[in-house]
Parts: sequence; C-alpha cells; structure tokens
Amino acid sequence: MTGQAYLDHAATSPMSAGVLDAYTRALREVGNPASTHGHGQRALEVLEGARERIAAAVGCDTAELVLTGGGTESINLALKGAFWARYGGGARPVILIADGEHHATIEAAEWLRDTQHADVRWLPLDAEGRLAPETLRGALTEVGAERVALVSFLWANNEIGTVQDVAALCAVANAAGVPVHVDAVAALGQVELDFAAVGADFLSVSAHKIGGPVGVGALVVGRRAKLEPLFHGGSQQRGRSGTQDVAGAVGFAAALDEVLIAGGSAPDPDHLARLAGLRDRLVAGIRAADPTAIYRGATGPDERLPGNAHFTFPGCQGDSLVFLLDAAGVSVSVGSACRAGVAETSHVLLAIGLPEAEAAGALRFTLGGASTEREIDALLAALPGVLERARAAGLS
Amino acid sequence: MTGQAYLDHAATSPMSAGVLDAYTRALREVGNPASTHGHGQRALEVLEGARERIAAAVGCDTAELVLTGGGTESINLALKGAFWARYGGGARPVILIADGEHHATIEAAEWLRDTQHADVRWLPLDAEGRLAPETLRGALTEVGAERVALVSFLWANNEIGTVQDVAALCAVANAAGVPVHVDAVAALGQVELDFAAVGADFLSVSAHKIGGPVGVGALVVGRRAKLEPLFHGGSQQRGRSGTQDVAGAVGFAAALDEVLIAGGSAPDPDHLARLAGLRDRLVAGIRAADPTAIYRGATGPDERLPGNAHFTFPGCQGDSLVFLLDAAGVSVSVGSACRAGVAETSHVLLAIGLPEAEAAGALRFTLGGASTEREIDALLAALPGVLERARAAGLS
Repeated sequence: MTGQAYLDHAATSPMSAGVLDAYTRALREVGNPASTHGHGQRALEVLEGARERIAAAVGCDTAELVLTGGGTESINLALKGAFWARYGGGARPVILIADGEHHATIEAAEWLRDTQHADVRWLPLDAEGRLAPETLRGALTEVGAERVALVSFLWANNEIGTVQDVAALCAVANAAGVPVHVDAVAALGQVELDFAAVGADFLSVSAHKIGGPVGVGALVVGRRAKLEPLFHGGSQQRGRSGTQDVAGAVGFAAALDEVLIAGGSAPDPDHLARLAGLRDRLVAGIRAADPTAIYRGATGPDERLPGNAHFTFPGCQGDSLVFLLDAAGVSVSVGSACRAGVAETSHVLLAIGLPEAEAAGALRFTLGGASTEREIDALLAALPGVLERARAAGLS
Repeated sequence: MTGQAYLDHAATSPMSAGVLDAYTRALREVGNPASTHGHGQRALEVLEGARERIAAAVGCDTAELVLTGGGTESINLALKGAFWARYGGGARPVILIADGEHHATIEAAEWLRDTQHADVRWLPLDAEGRLAPETLRGALTEVGAERVALVSFLWANNEIGTVQDVAALCAVANAAGVPVHVDAVAALGQVELDFAAVGADFLSVSAHKIGGPVGVGALVVGRRAKLEPLFHGGSQQRGRSGTQDVAGAVGFAAALDEVLIAGGSAPDPDHLARLAGLRDRLVAGIRAADPTAIYRGATGPDERLPGNAHFTFPGCQGDSLVFLLDAAGVSVSVGSACRAGVAETSHVLLAIGLPEAEAAGALRFTLGGASTEREIDALLAALPGVLERARAAGLS
C-alpha cells in the first residue's frame, strides 16, 4: 500500500526496521525453551531476557508476567480465569464491567453470564468516557463486595482515547477486597503502565498495537491473584501452557524499546511529543475543515492518549467516510477493527450517551511511531471533498 | 549453538531460509485483515491465500480452518469447546481419551473432569502404542454412545512415533454418532492428513513442529461440528476471536510448501525418503553401539513417523543420557518438551505397559528438514562413551 496514508495504528501498527531486525535474528535461533539441552537452554536465556524487558515496561515482576498469544487471549484469560478461580460453589457470581469496553471483554463477560452462571453488571461512563471511582464504589456497595469475583475496565479507551484514573479505581476495588483487571492494550506505549504502583491484580497488553508482532501479548497476574488457565498442558508458564514464543517475546521487547525510555516503563517523551504534535495538527485541521465536527473523548491533560483523535461528523455515515477516504488514499476507521468488519454503531459512543444518529458519523484517527505530517496533510486535503460527497449522499 | 547436533525436531524445528524469507516479507505488510480500508483488504488477501494453502495441506475447506496460537490452544479449544457445545444440561458428560496423549489433551480433559462435570475415560493402547478400533467400539458400547461428548486421540504419537489407523477409528466414532478430535501436531509433514477423507470432526496442527513460526497453529472444525470458543471478542473467525496473524499464516504456509507436494496434502516423497534414510542410519548405528537398546513404538510400514526413533537403554536414566549427550555436543530429549523441563517417567511408555525402571532409560530422536548425516554421526560417535558413563553412574 505504498503511498496510502495510514491513520489506523490502533488497529495494528507496522513493525519498524529495528524491531523486524531484532525479531528475525531471534527467529534464527533454534530451540524450545522447555528443552533441557543446550539449544533449549540458550532459547530460555533469550526468552528470559525479553521477559525482563516486558515486565519492566509494565512495572511488574518477571514471575508475574504470563506471555500470551495477544490481547484477546489475555483479556479472556483474565476474565474467565479470575471468575472460575473465585466463583467456586457460586459464592462470588458478580463481574463488574465498565461500559464501552473492548469487544473481547464484553463478549467474554456475556459468555460467562450465559453459560457459567456469572451475574454481569455494567458500570456507566460519563459523557467523555470516564468511569468515576464513586460509580465503582457505589456498585460494590450495592451488590456487596463479597459477591464480586472481578472488576474490569480499560486503562484507555481504544476508540475515543479517554484515559482512566486507574490508581483511584484500583484503590476502590482494593479497599473492597475485589480483584481488578485493567485492559491496557490501547494504553501501552502512550501512558506509563505501572502495575505495582496502581494496585491492579491483572493487566492485559498486546505487542502489535505498538509495532511488535501480531499474536504476542501478555497478561500480568499479580503474585496473590488467583487464576484458572484457559490452556492446560505442559504448564510452561504460571496460568498458561503451550510452547513459549521466544522470537515473539524478543520482538515485543524490541518494540517496547522504541516507545519507552531505556529499560523503563515511562513512554519516551520525544515519542509522546511527536504523537501529540501530529494529533494536534490533525485536530486543528479537521476543525478548520468542518466546524460542525465534534471532538469526542476527554481533553484534559493526561486524560487522553496522545496518538488518538476521534470526531463525529454530523449528517455523515462513518462507513461512507471510511470508504471515500480510502478511495482518496487514506486508511482510517470508524472504531475498533476488532469487530471483524461488521458495520454497526459504536457501542463506545452509545455508552457515553450519544444517540444513534450522532454516533453514526464517527471516525477514529490513530497514530504511531511511523506516522508523518505528510499523512496528516493527505487526510486534511481529502476531507473537505469527502465530507461534501458523504453529506450529498446522505441527503439523496 | 553452532556445531551442536540437533536431534529434537519434535520439540521445535528450525525455520529454513526460505520460510524466514516468506515470513519476513509478510511481516513488512501493514494492516489488520479486519479493517475495511485498503491496508486491511490487502492484509486479508494475503491471509486468505495462506489460509487456502494450509487448508489444502490438511484436506479441509478454508471455511473449516480456524487459525490459532499453536497446538496447545488448538487442542484445548477442541476438547473444551466440543465438550461445552455438547454437554448441555449434562446430557453427554463422557470424554473418551486414548492413553499416552500429549499433555495438552490430558490436562485439558482432567480440568474438564475436575471443574466442568466431565466423565473422562481412558482408552488403552497396545504394546506398540496402537489404539485398536475394537477398543474404541467397546468403550462406546459400554458407556453408551449417546452419553459421549467427544473422542480424542493422536494421529501419531509425539514420543514413540506410532501412527494410528485414523480412518478406522473415525469410522467407529462416526458409526456411533460421536464427534472425533485428532491431534495431528506430531504427524503433520510426515503423514498425509486428509481431514475430509478420514471423517474426523476436529483436527489440531502446529506450525513450529515443521519449521513454521512458533505461536501459530490451526484447528480444523468440520462444517457440522459444534464448538464453543475459548476466546470471545470480535468473532474474526468461526470459533475464535482475536486479530488474525497474517504473517504467521504466511510462514506456516511456506513451511508446509517445504515438506508437502506442491499445493497438496501428501508429504513430499523425497523429504520422507530423506528423513527415513537418516532415521534408519541412526537406528542401525544405535543397535550396533548397544545391542541391549530396545526400539520402541510400531515398526510396520506406514505405522511409524519416518522422522522418529525411540529407544530405551537398560540400566540408564534418560535424563543423564540427555545431559551427557548435551555435553558431548548433541541435543536430544527423553520425550516431550511440552512438560516444561519436569523430569518424570514418560506417561507414554507407561501407557504401552513398560515398568517404571525400563521406561526411565528412554531417549527420543526426532529429525526434520535440516537434519544431516553429520548430526547422526555425531550422536553415534558420542553414544558409546555416554552409555558407559551413564551405566557406571547408575551402579555407583
């Protein structure tokens, strides 16, 4: 797709030459890290080096890091594994889930409800996508904390980019003695994730959203957290069986090195400033092109992902805008790509109180390390004509 | 590990330069195949091309192929998903599992037994590792087929290399109306897998056992088979949610192209002849080096994987042999690497009736496309001294 602008890094972000190089070097290594011979032990050494880097990136201990096959697996493992581990004899049937979560969380919770006797309660968001600590506290009091197996919410929303006050939310759950899962897939690389400091019990991340390999992710499982595995077998990791993907871990670690400060968990300030600068150029350009467009999500300092912009365009259908922009050489999306190409109104926008008609005209713009001013400008050049055609089609 | 001989391809088999090249080219593509824009549609096209190759390799339709994160996931998805889908109100609580299966199958079945009300029955093997169709028929009659949710067995045993009469076993299950899962992870590339012809309902394979990427596998789910997913979310595939790994599928397809005939499901005859030739050299050399060594598993035509040799060495501990051979520059294993380095007696050897003491002296030798005569000869040169030291240590 040479020449086509790519403004959909939240769907998947390309692998840089540096990450590809580290990854392919690791792919050339031979050995299963569970083997006791030299080849296996060498693979284990490489794996453990990568595991240390990934653990440092999310502020957990290496013993707490379970490498998985991606974000959807991590989220399903956290929700189902924690529910099964705590439900026992029906004692704790309730799962508290924030509104506007990723489909993996919603569908996993609904499956637990429909087949495993879970009682799922949804926690409302405010108009900018925030889950208020008082909302969580109220739900815990109403339900009775002793009946709750798990609380789950997004660190940052994957569509509208709103960042939660994770420490405050975890503090509420901790005070009630209820485990917390935080879905940090969209937040990774743009917000500092410090698992130990915020007091979470489970935390999900994925490599390909920051330019690491697809099919690689992690679930952090706190030392005292209880979890039933989704995959049984050779028990290669706590809570997960299956041959460990050494090269995948190396690729993930290399991608983290490109967006975080050396060896740490804080995003690289230059990377953040670059993302925010491009995003601000995009937002200003869209506002100039269409003063009726409404910027969605939180806008306060530290309340929004720097690589995210989200607008609704009155009188337009998001799907038509995606189609017309694509034809004009720009790849964007209406929302999550994690809904398999199904055209439906964003559940996130409904969760923040938009009526269907307003929610229909949504576009999400997401940036990554490879994003350029040229791509922003390609969007801004195409947008006026695209909006005009979309609105004309809507009137006909 | 330059210079170290690698005779443990069943643990994981290295990626060839050709596969690595196809894989890295696919890694450079940008786009999530669930995205509707140009980048996404291009990714989808590449993915579907690879899916067609993988489906052809196992004799199924592309609509029946669910790409997964590896063999352990495929097996867990088949067992749990089929059990949940058929158990309904407790109607079909029984799972029939062959003895000597991979740990993923055993542990998944035991978890279903311990937490999900499954009634697991184990089907005995003969002394060479065969599951007799009459054994399966007898168990179905004894239990009552209407009470059985699933039958599961290995196409070929991953330790002793015995190949089952899969068509005959499936015919017994089909006649009783009971779905069958076949774990073909060890068989892939060395036996023709024709899903449609044998009449199975589920079939598991993994890419890295034939030199494809780790973390990539597939579960074939027959058109009429019913399955509950392990991962819920965006429903990207039938029975599995999660971003699809385009490059992983391309790498898997490229690895299949190296071991199978062009576009087909039959193993390349030259590849098989090469494996069998090296294996026969290894077997003859071991017999010459130690006439007391006992060759395990089936030996009839088409009854054993050509890349597998398995011996027990009287008076030795397999772990010591692995350690001493490793020091002498040869990587081998006692059995499955999928048991996370735990030193324990092989459950496969116990399943074919060996007493603990005899089973303790086991070594598995497995070959792949990259195996050489030099590696066999390195093993044969080291073995006499290693056996002498191992036996001397055993006597002290």
